[in-house]
Amino acid sequence: MEDRVEISLLMDFYSPLLTEKQRNIMELYYNEDLSLAEIAELNNTSRQAIHDLIKRCYKLLLSYENKLNLLQKSMNRENRIIDFLDNLKVKYSINDKEYETLKSELEDL
Amino acid sequence: MEDRVEISLLMDFYSPLLTEKQRNIMELYYNEDLSLAEIAELNNTSRQAIHDLIKRCYKLLLSYENKLNLLQKSMNRENRIIDFLDNLKVKYSINDKEYETLKSELEDL
Repeated sequence: MEDRVEISLLMDFYSPLLTEKQRNIMELYYNEDLSLAEIAELNNTSRQAIHDLIKRCYKLLLSYENKLNLLQKSMNRENRIIDFLDNLKVKYSINDKEYETLKSELEDL
Repeated sequence: MEDRVEISLLMDFYSPLLTEKQRNIMELYYNEDLSLAEIAELNNTSRQAIHDLIKRCYKLLLSYENKLNLLQKSMNRENRIIDFLDNLKVKYSINDKEYETLKSELEDL
């Protein structure tokens, strides 16, 4: 199926927009690494139904990202935090340990 | 109708999730300040239909905020940027002009 890392990141941002059932199945498949057959059994349905649901959810997650760009913005932000800190480091002679502290503070903002 | 400032902020975050027609009508009403009657005329429909659409969109925007909290997070972030900078200001004797520059850089991150 699709790239697991990408889907896992998309889920971090958009899983609250899925239904509880969709979210549950996506988590079993992408985070807990259950097989389609195992998830089908847990949900009393066919492997094909689970496959289709996962495909549909993936498209849904992509459509949210196309509209809101939260994942893209978050990746850009990471680079801009580093630029911001590199600039600060030069100006105020910030040491490496302090740099890392500020970086993690900014990432949590 | 509902609080215009709140709706305008919600639109900043979630308007891409509305349909083009919904977005268009919400913008005419909340940003361009047209009346329900004027929007109804532009759309060849009744004042009541526009009223209902706006109500529906408002509920939709609130449901997105309840799930993703982008507006709430953005408001919290503003406070945390100030805490971060106040801390930095004390440590590195940052002057007021530089403080403002860093603040606007962080707000754009």
